[in-house]
Amino acid sequence: MPSPLINSLVEALRILPGVGPKSAQRMAYYVLERNRKGGDKLAYALQQAIEKVGNCAKCRDLTEAEVCGICSSPRRLQHELCVVENPTDVTVIEQSGIFKGVYFVLMGHLSPIDGIGPQDLGLDILKARLVEGEITEVILATNPTVEGEATAHYIQQMAKDAGVAVSRLAQGIPMGGELEYIDSGTLSQAFAGRKTV
Amino acid sequence: MPSPLINSLVEALRILPGVGPKSAQRMAYYVLERNRKGGDKLAYALQQAIEKVGNCAKCRDLTEAEVCGICSSPRRLQHELCVVENPTDVTVIEQSGIFKGVYFVLMGHLSPIDGIGPQDLGLDILKARLVEGEITEVILATNPTVEGEATAHYIQQMAKDAGVAVSRLAQGIPMGGELEYIDSGTLSQAFAGRKTV
Repeated sequence: MPSPLINSLVEALRILPGVGPKSAQRMAYYVLERNRKGGDKLAYALQQAIEKVGNCAKCRDLTEAEVCGICSSPRRLQHELCVVENPTDVTVIEQSGIFKGVYFVLMGHLSPIDGIGPQDLGLDILKARLVEGEITEVILATNPTVEGEATAHYIQQMAKDAGVAVSRLAQGIPMGGELEYIDSGTLSQAFAGRKTV
Repeated sequence: MPSPLINSLVEALRILPGVGPKSAQRMAYYVLERNRKGGDKLAYALQQAIEKVGNCAKCRDLTEAEVCGICSSPRRLQHELCVVENPTDVTVIEQSGIFKGVYFVLMGHLSPIDGIGPQDLGLDILKARLVEGEITEVILATNPTVEGEATAHYIQQMAKDAGVAVSRLAQGIPMGGELEYIDSGTLSQAFAGRKTV
């Protein structure tokens, strides 16, 4: 018969992705029995991040500054723009260290069924940047899903209208992948995109 | 290249049991991108629970009241006392609805190696209650582990000294369990505790 406050804590923890009723209860008891200091820190970190983290004015990535670290860095190539769906995609590409340009984060993909149109993805901001003339190449790195492809197609048209070169990340068999386990969609992309060696 | 505030949020989330670096990052981005309201609620619930939830003066269970709902309920048998290790154990027994008495929550078990002695488990409070005379039976429901057994043995002695009857939860094959998959320890307990039918 847990107390109302413990109940609300368990309920509140369930908003986190991947946390069901059992793990929420385990987390609540863990914090209250063994790590109240850590719980306090978590509450503070949540409030601080929610209050202060907004979107970068240039690329829409999450940041507490007006313009994010990547957009304001003099060491990044400001004329190469990589368009991704989510902030996590930026993290993944940054970890690979392969890309030296800047990003534009859509925070989703076009999805008319959910009422998500170009405005919601900040495509007006992107258009203005493309027309401005600083960007010379747009690299489309949206997910290879139906919605991701549709979004990429839309941006491709936009960039062409503004006279900016567009490319799309190569699709094919992933490194270490075995043919036996590759789905037919990926396989047909790999055949279509084959290169003479 | 996430911002410092996002980094601290990811770090803070990792205190939760079962949350590794990847899920912490997923949770942080989920809250910031899609559910700031839920995040605010979580921060508030954490602070409220940490600030106000303490231990019941009678049974040591977690509660925001001076004495918990079970201890202060007139419908519970105040002379039957079930001793458990953790608040979660209380929840499990309450869900079964089998027990109508009151609890004593040790908040752990005797573990000299970790410096956890009788004082840390509130056994002085328990002793005082046993000597008082209101309790007529102590039901030991500590876990069937080495430490749980040692703790049960200690309390058993204490109750006997105070002239209070003591019992221990039956050990044996769980319902729906198949002999094939039962460990030998449980099996030997089941043989030792066999009943004539």
